[in-house]
Amino acid sequence: MSLLVVGTVAFDAIETPFGKTDKIVGGAASYIALASSYFTKEINIVSVVGDDFPTEFMNTLKGQGVNLEGLQIKQGEKSFFWSGRYHNDMNSRDTLDTQLNVLAEFDPIVPESYQNCDFLMLGNLMPTVQQKVLSQLSKRPKLIVLDTMNFWMDIAMPELMETLKGIDVLTINDSEARQLSGEYSLVKAAQKILAMGPKVLVIKKGEHGALLFNKEEVFFAPALPLEDVFDPTGAGDSFAGGFIGYLAKTKDISFENMKRAIIFGSAMASFTVEKFGTERLIGLSQKDVDNRVQEFVDLVQFDISLV
Amino acid sequence: MSLLVVGTVAFDAIETPFGKTDKIVGGAASYIALASSYFTKEINIVSVVGDDFPTEFMNTLKGQGVNLEGLQIKQGEKSFFWSGRYHNDMNSRDTLDTQLNVLAEFDPIVPESYQNCDFLMLGNLMPTVQQKVLSQLSKRPKLIVLDTMNFWMDIAMPELMETLKGIDVLTINDSEARQLSGEYSLVKAAQKILAMGPKVLVIKKGEHGALLFNKEEVFFAPALPLEDVFDPTGAGDSFAGGFIGYLAKTKDISFENMKRAIIFGSAMASFTVEKFGTERLIGLSQKDVDNRVQEFVDLVQFDISLV
Repeated sequence: MSLLVVGTVAFDAIETPFGKTDKIVGGAASYIALASSYFTKEINIVSVVGDDFPTEFMNTLKGQGVNLEGLQIKQGEKSFFWSGRYHNDMNSRDTLDTQLNVLAEFDPIVPESYQNCDFLMLGNLMPTVQQKVLSQLSKRPKLIVLDTMNFWMDIAMPELMETLKGIDVLTINDSEARQLSGEYSLVKAAQKILAMGPKVLVIKKGEHGALLFNKEEVFFAPALPLEDVFDPTGAGDSFAGGFIGYLAKTKDISFENMKRAIIFGSAMASFTVEKFGTERLIGLSQKDVDNRVQEFVDLVQFDISLV
Repeated sequence: MSLLVVGTVAFDAIETPFGKTDKIVGGAASYIALASSYFTKEINIVSVVGDDFPTEFMNTLKGQGVNLEGLQIKQGEKSFFWSGRYHNDMNSRDTLDTQLNVLAEFDPIVPESYQNCDFLMLGNLMPTVQQKVLSQLSKRPKLIVLDTMNFWMDIAMPELMETLKGIDVLTINDSEARQLSGEYSLVKAAQKILAMGPKVLVIKKGEHGALLFNKEEVFFAPALPLEDVFDPTGAGDSFAGGFIGYLAKTKDISFENMKRAIIFGSAMASFTVEKFGTERLIGLSQKDVDNRVQEFVDLVQFDISLV
């Protein structure tokens, strides 16, 4: 089923304990589209870049079956740029530089050919931009997943709260769940957040896995213990891409199927962190993905029969 | 099968964001014995207290089937006392007071009736004391599990390293695994630690669950997402007690059965943190334990069939 992906397509410069990169391609929509492309083939992007963005990467996306009709290319302007340095624990990071560039005035336009999308992934962006996309859709998608971050909770909480009212699934990390709810306990945080609009909440805990909540149930998905996390950039977006990609492929948005989708999302994230940037998400085979998912199955499988 | 438990029987005074206690009963061996008593009935303790220790709690232990012949009661001396304050995250804590008292000169004596024990749980204590117990056993137990902490890595690393050579399973937390191995990655840390003597390593991650490693395999057990963690004191010891108690009950020390044992250990820890001290571990029914274990099963259960 068709998937609409909204988010940044941009440049990053990254430092980790393992090394540093010059400007490389990144952005939420890049990771989401690449990760979801292993599950579904009608993927449409709404985003914006400057005329400095490499056509090579656009061709890579097209090669993975991603439609770029909704990718605005602003002549004479520059693409969004973020630079950051990860600490030794790979969970915390400092932002070294942020250049909004084309993002400052981003006015998303949903092309006519994107209408009637079944699945919508609103990647991390200003809540008002996410809402502008929602308002352009003539038909409500079957499932709307939204990702956001602490930055918008700091500076645009009313707009974020308004946007949350219209979505189905929210994905945030554990500290963001605590900030959004004002609760330290994630169980209490989840119940408060589920009262804000989303029917389902995914709390991403990085190397500690992810929790999936609805009002009655909870599911826990582990993260794969890795020898090295090389670069965590894009892990959350790859997770979201695998998650919604799997749901679009299977056309089943039940809680039971979301459990499976989270495992597939976690598998895609585990690839991403093995190399800098989007590199590891390009050219995977179905066998690679299946083998990785099997590692998750093996990791948590146990057999207890209670009488 | 008979289980020998070595560790402190002591007093704690605890402050958490939820309240504070006066002197209450605690100690590694208390938690281990209580938690294991729901699985196996021949439980023998080696420990030491002063004449200030309440007979009421000793009767509680006896009521749970715990043999106290090896519990030395030092007349005119005081029991070990620890006082601490937990931070808001419930993972970090400050030690406010430590009074070694009877522990300063503790010379463990294994009674003749404890010989031929099948399972040995060496709770957190000076590594030399743990070794003294090992050297008194006429027959090597079927399984030796050892718990320790960063404090001994700081002040008695050579003695700890020596003790590790003779054991089967080591249980430590994630920061201790990093300290012991000098590796940040827990996968790398595990391989280094498994080269030090233990055949199996359990890395406890508190609210993030636990990892079980041998040289070839890894298993991940989740922690139950709880509304409130009331008092984390004794969680690790309750975990160890449930773990070794289940192994003693089932008489199966394969890696597959250790996966199950970790789930039962996690269930016992999840009870402990619901109230101050040992309170929650007294008077549970088999049904309570089974229901709690079922919650763990439900939490991580998913069904993925890869073609």
